[in-house]
Amino acid sequence: MQMLKEAILQKGRAINQDVLLVDSFLNHQVDVRLMREVGETFARRFQEGAFTRVVTIESSGIAPAAFTALALGLPLVVMKKQTSKIMTGDLLETTVRSFTKGTQYQLTVKREFLGEGDRVLLIDDFLASGEAAFGVLNLASQAGATVGGIGIVIEKAFQPGRKRLEDAGMDVYSLARVKSMTKDHIEFVDD
Amino acid sequence: MQMLKEAILQKGRAINQDVLLVDSFLNHQVDVRLMREVGETFARRFQEGAFTRVVTIESSGIAPAAFTALALGLPLVVMKKQTSKIMTGDLLETTVRSFTKGTQYQLTVKREFLGEGDRVLLIDDFLASGEAAFGVLNLASQAGATVGGIGIVIEKAFQPGRKRLEDAGMDVYSLARVKSMTKDHIEFVDD
Repeated sequence: MQMLKEAILQKGRAINQDVLLVDSFLNHQVDVRLMREVGETFARRFQEGAFTRVVTIESSGIAPAAFTALALGLPLVVMKKQTSKIMTGDLLETTVRSFTKGTQYQLTVKREFLGEGDRVLLIDDFLASGEAAFGVLNLASQAGATVGGIGIVIEKAFQPGRKRLEDAGMDVYSLARVKSMTKDHIEFVDD
Repeated sequence: MQMLKEAILQKGRAINQDVLLVDSFLNHQVDVRLMREVGETFARRFQEGAFTRVVTIESSGIAPAAFTALALGLPLVVMKKQTSKIMTGDLLETTVRSFTKGTQYQLTVKREFLGEGDRVLLIDDFLASGEAAFGVLNLASQAGATVGGIGIVIEKAFQPGRKRLEDAGMDVYSLARVKSMTKDHIEFVDD
């Protein structure tokens, strides 16, 4: 997606060869017009997928996923990174480990918002090792739902996430695939 | 806002006289069409306010705030509840206490996303005691910015938040003002 790649080149900043700072337009300050374009681009790519729900993980995926859900006319379900005190009812839960950060968190969703026969389109801001996406696959599986597509805003193509998800049969579509980066240069796949 | 009140009556659930569960359309599963209406309603109410930024607090405020920012043609800034490891640069920070929950968290924003002369429209999902809003006022003040309006999706009108904010000179606009609630009945102000 050209508009997104230009935003990454103009406003993104590679802190090192692994961390890409895009907090001026994606995950702290948010360019909502760009996010609407992102959502509509995902919707065009996945419109024939017979999805019943758009799912994302709080909180950076919410803006692009909300515009995707609106364009597809579907409800959005935001998976939570921990159990809220006021989340009552039957919860599905899995542990997501971040190998790069050395951290882990509980990913949760209420069973009533993800059910038998649901076909999920997962939208997330980043794909690196794929651990978060596998967490969503796990919760969908617990619910009797299937993940029919994964839309990623920025893929770190030098990380193993895409290969692992494709090996699991997933249809992964990324709007910008970063092949490599240094402080001076960000290179995309297919440039 | 009629459509919102109907959603609260049909899908909301008062767990007790203080906790209103709206996670089937607002903060877990999200009705994005309703959120677009919410955003456009805030935009109409605040369109003459000469705002430069829409601000919200992660994560339940993001969807309504994104649609508000889009309708007003403004950037959205999402204040964070804790410092991310990859948030670098000059951070503004304040402590927000939740009296009802007995918890507290650090609210942070990068100084580069809130500056001298900025005029902020704060959008949030709930208003109860007003502590979160006062946290945003504090960060805006540190940045040399002003908060020129506060748009709330659901106000617990039986809590002191509105009075405290109005006493501080704030223009508070809520789309649904809950006067009282029990397990069987939710009553709005002005019904």
